[in-house]
Amino acid sequence: MKDIVSEIDDYLRILFPVHRSITGEGNRETLRILQELIPIRMIEYPSGQQVFDWTIPQEWIIRDAWIKGSNDKKIVNYRNSNLHVVSYSRPIHKKISQKELFTHLHFLEDLPEAIPYRTSYYKENWGFCVSYNDFQRYFSNEDNFEVYIDSEFKNGSLSVGELLIKGESAKEYLISTYLCHPSMANDNLSGVILTAMLARELMHRKLNYSYRFVFLPETIGAIAYCANNQEAMKKIDAGFVITNVGGPGKHGYKQSWHANHPINQIIESTFRENEIDFITYSFNIHGSDERQYSSGGFRINAASITKDKYYEYDYYHTSLDNLDFVKPEYINESLQIYIEAIEKLDKNIIYENIFPNCEVMLSKHGLYPQTGGGLLPDDSTLNELDLTLWLLFYCDGQISLFEIAEKLGIDIHILYTTAEKLFQKNLLKRCDF
Amino acid sequence: MKDIVSEIDDYLRILFPVHRSITGEGNRETLRILQELIPIRMIEYPSGQQVFDWTIPQEWIIRDAWIKGSNDKKIVNYRNSNLHVVSYSRPIHKKISQKELFTHLHFLEDLPEAIPYRTSYYKENWGFCVSYNDFQRYFSNEDNFEVYIDSEFKNGSLSVGELLIKGESAKEYLISTYLCHPSMANDNLSGVILTAMLARELMHRKLNYSYRFVFLPETIGAIAYCANNQEAMKKIDAGFVITNVGGPGKHGYKQSWHANHPINQIIESTFRENEIDFITYSFNIHGSDERQYSSGGFRINAASITKDKYYEYDYYHTSLDNLDFVKPEYINESLQIYIEAIEKLDKNIIYENIFPNCEVMLSKHGLYPQTGGGLLPDDSTLNELDLTLWLLFYCDGQISLFEIAEKLGIDIHILYTTAEKLFQKNLLKRCDF
Amino acid sequence: MKDIVSEIDDYLRILFPVHRSITGEGNRETLRILQELIPIRMIEYPSGQQVFDWTIPQEWIIRDAWIKGSNDKKIVNYRNSNLHVVSYSRPIHKKISQKELFTHLHFLEDLPEAIPYRTSYYKENWGFCVSYNDFQRYFSNEDNFEVYIDSEFKNGSLSVGELLIKGESAKEYLISTYLCHPSMANDNLSGVILTAMLARELMHRKLNYSYRFVFLPETIGAIAYCANNQEAMKKIDAGFVITNVGGPGKHGYKQSWHANHPINQIIESTFRENEIDFITYSFNIHGSDERQYSSGGFRINAASITKDKYYEYDYYHTSLDNLDFVKPEYINESLQIYIEAIEKLDKNIIYENIFPNCEVMLSKHGLYPQTGGGLLPDDSTLNELDLTLWLLFYCDGQISLFEIAEKLGIDIHILYTTAEKLFQKNLLKRCDF
Repeated sequence: MKDIVSEIDDYLRILFPVHRSITGEGNRETLRILQELIPIRMIEYPSGQQVFDWTIPQEWIIRDAWIKGSNDKKIVNYRNSNLHVVSYSRPIHKKISQKELFTHLHFLEDLPEAIPYRTSYYKENWGFCVSYNDFQRYFSNEDNFEVYIDSEFKNGSLSVGELLIKGESAKEYLISTYLCHPSMANDNLSGVILTAMLARELMHRKLNYSYRFVFLPETIGAIAYCANNQEAMKKIDAGFVITNVGGPGKHGYKQSWHANHPINQIIESTFRENEIDFITYSFNIHGSDERQYSSGGFRINAASITKDKYYEYDYYHTSLDNLDFVKPEYINESLQIYIEAIEKLDKNIIYENIFPNCEVMLSKHGLYPQTGGGLLPDDSTLNELDLTLWLLFYCDGQISLFEIAEKLGIDIHILYTTAEKLFQKNLLKRCDF
Repeated sequence: MKDIVSEIDDYLRILFPVHRSITGEGNRETLRILQELIPIRMIEYPSGQQVFDWTIPQEWIIRDAWIKGSNDKKIVNYRNSNLHVVSYSRPIHKKISQKELFTHLHFLEDLPEAIPYRTSYYKENWGFCVSYNDFQRYFSNEDNFEVYIDSEFKNGSLSVGELLIKGESAKEYLISTYLCHPSMANDNLSGVILTAMLARELMHRKLNYSYRFVFLPETIGAIAYCANNQEAMKKIDAGFVITNVGGPGKHGYKQSWHANHPINQIIESTFRENEIDFITYSFNIHGSDERQYSSGGFRINAASITKDKYYEYDYYHTSLDNLDFVKPEYINESLQIYIEAIEKLDKNIIYENIFPNCEVMLSKHGLYPQTGGGLLPDDSTLNELDLTLWLLFYCDGQISLFEIAEKLGIDIHILYTTAEKLFQKNLLKRCDF
Repeated sequence: MKDIVSEIDDYLRILFPVHRSITGEGNRETLRILQELIPIRMIEYPSGQQVFDWTIPQEWIIRDAWIKGSNDKKIVNYRNSNLHVVSYSRPIHKKISQKELFTHLHFLEDLPEAIPYRTSYYKENWGFCVSYNDFQRYFSNEDNFEVYIDSEFKNGSLSVGELLIKGESAKEYLISTYLCHPSMANDNLSGVILTAMLARELMHRKLNYSYRFVFLPETIGAIAYCANNQEAMKKIDAGFVITNVGGPGKHGYKQSWHANHPINQIIESTFRENEIDFITYSFNIHGSDERQYSSGGFRINAASITKDKYYEYDYYHTSLDNLDFVKPEYINESLQIYIEAIEKLDKNIIYENIFPNCEVMLSKHGLYPQTGGGLLPDDSTLNELDLTLWLLFYCDGQISLFEIAEKLGIDIHILYTTAEKLFQKNLLKRCDF
């Protein structure tokens, strides 16, 4: 059996060249490849469907695109990089002056080797992206060009991958990633692969809570999914938007909208326990699909654990965000942090003491040393009797286990073991189960 | 057209000599003169009317008063200062010994040139107020005096001036000033004139909220007004008691009873933006009519912006609080602060996002740059797109615009412009409208 | 009439030798002796009664117990100390090897002169407790012993002493002490005697609130009492568990479960006013009967004022916790602190202003200086007018007098005097009365 880093490496290589967008065959192909790992259900939302304030667009098909210079040589060729064409460019084929072409040409003077990534989803337009080096070499001294984009719009659908992993409780966490960015490794092929690996891992575990995994195009995909799953989504309290997890830079996390929500404390405690230095990004209204999930109608506390967060690294949204920049080892590091954080989230149960009137008779339930009157044990560390008593004291059907653990200054895993013993003995009940 | 400082100066001179009290012709005359500026409605509450725990008193008429010494010369003469007579003194005319007179004579040893201001509204009594210098000169060496007070009590009414300035919302702010103090310039002719000027200014503006202006005698007037307008007054959340706004000393403000109410933050931000040094006076149960408005039955957050606050200056409640002490320029400074604070209050709207489910499609509403994928703009300052997104995120029908502005560290005027654009585009609705 | 220290001394001597346990004649004898001081009602809960998760045990009767060494001499004799027998030891009479005996023998190597205190209430067992010195002298060199315990279990009852002291309000504070520990002076004969003295003191006072005194065996007694008095106990908000009040060490208090509850602030202010250094013990789930009273079904804020708190002193739960260790003077010191704290609690009334609309007319109610217009009195200290105004402002039927006193930085006794004057004048009403 392959080790996980090699697996990640394989999927990086297979999926990197696929031309994804907000709709289209590239997205479906990506989801089909991920089905090798996990049983993703593919959902299609038809073009023209109204989803809240938005409309599902037509599918965009891109077959070829190039620009020729005066000597009839192709100086830009879509076959070399699918970033060369502005996403959702309309078809065009004509001779064109330098002046007119330049209004459709994107490059980055500050990063001369990089092809930038540009889109025009909702305004009919066309365009090319080139490196500044190529721009200087091929474009600055010529007056006339021939441009060709063989694209097409047609009624089709927007594709979403969904996987519901059932735990004992029907209460769900949301785990969302976006697959609309073509051929950029950190943003967000890294997130797509991590999410699939994470889902596979959780499928093999006995879980307390349920996990709703979604793979969808950013913004329009999240909106379409929310609109088509309102009831389920409005019940969700927290989750993750998995993105930008494979760069060489620092670990970090973007907080969910409510800074005091346990999900943020759980992420921080996970970093600290692993002695990982991390950057905290406050919630900001810019970002990824937490914009949709945090909106007034949903208010899901969605956080992102990152390694080289979007906006923050030089190669962001360019062709240099490639397989030289991203390493499978980095993705695996992020994966392990996600797994540990979810292990805690999964144990963050709200219990309620079934016998709230006075203490239960601990010895009757096999929970007490049997000769009384001794000294209190050294209380510099809490022993199991302490935890038992504190749990029976605190658990009122309101406070969550992580909150009790924080009050007691103790690891949630240790407290969970005691809580589950009390649950097995029918002293605590689990709320939301 | 006259400039505002000259206007203030004129009204100071016209109104200063009028003998005001808690009832009477002087109050009505004052209101009639203010009617040159604004269409005050005059309300009369008849003597004997029960208002909560109080009873509207009879009107007090004062025609003349003097004290003669042994040589039959008037050593105190009401014609020289209406402060010489204790307000609501009963009529008297008799020869009197030094010993008896002294129990009815008020002066200030520490401020020998000042005639103090004294009242006896609710206990039948009579008295004179003199400067300590006069006391020493005319009273200390004589044994017999003749006192004369030609006053009268009769059933009449307590007069209140009211002006309702309607804004788009029926929700009101209260703006109250008291006019019962005779011939003292800072306390409170300054407040009366500022209030009238402020009302005239607001009448010429398009306002979001409505403003309930009242000119009334302190305490009994505020109580009478509350008792006769319970329903309206119990709906009011905040406002101002305008008083002591024209002295040479420092600017300051007395906080409303709930220190965290936005009105207090708005006042402070106004001072800071104008780089005005100011004193903060915590809410205190002594003071002016905020005592009534803050009581349990109303709990209006009423603040006072002051310049030389009552209690705090040497000439307080004496004849030295006169037109040498108060300057129209000072009153105008206070007026401008009030206007700026009210401009903010008037914009402190609670909005609600009409499309709370996910983000709206900004480009469809003309709110988004049309080629996607670019870098995040330098976020050291918030641009209009940022403000749009934050407003749509925050506006939930609960949080007020000033509170959002504080969270974003931005001026409410700037945020209001964006909010109103979203309101015009039917993305936000205004609550309480 | 005897002074209180002598009285305490007498009762220490009378009650110290009585063999108390969780049930039995020693407990009834103790309560009967306390009936000389206060009219305790004796309640008997029969053996076998189900009380929440527990069952009232049989009574344990102990008549004699000894161990003989090889020379037939008694080397341990129950007549010398009732701590020699593990509480609730079953009867036994047999020859026994050293090895078997040692599994039933308790001693403390670190405190070689002390006989430890041990119990086995809920597991049938037997055992002896000896000093380590005796252990070495009599046990370590012998191989064969004869053990004899003349005890008996029989259906009987668990005895609780109850005294309800009625104040004007039916709202009760709980005052609980435990009497199950045999022949230890600080833990808890000191608490039992203090509680009786405190009750006698309160019986002679005019009280606002009612006080529910209970004398009961720890844990099972508190549980039995709660189970049999659920309705009354669930109405109680706060109280004391009186224990360990007579040692030579430092004063201190264990906080009730809700650290911000006024009872904790009241205790601290009492210590501070008496310039007594004190230790604050945070609420902890170990301890005494606050474990039961603080449980989810009751959530009573029960604090303990201590002098040499259990767990914290060397002689804890040994024969050295005796009348050489505890002094009646110490118990009296603790008693005075309890009395002062209860004086404050008893005044911690929630008032409601009967005239919440605007201020009342103070002069009409004889509450105002009768010539107006003077300067504000020096407000470095609050005068009675200030207190009157603040009380009328704050009292809304929610906030308690101690909370207002804290806001004003003033002693509750002073504020209470003013509040009661306003109550007498029908301006305030007392809630819960």
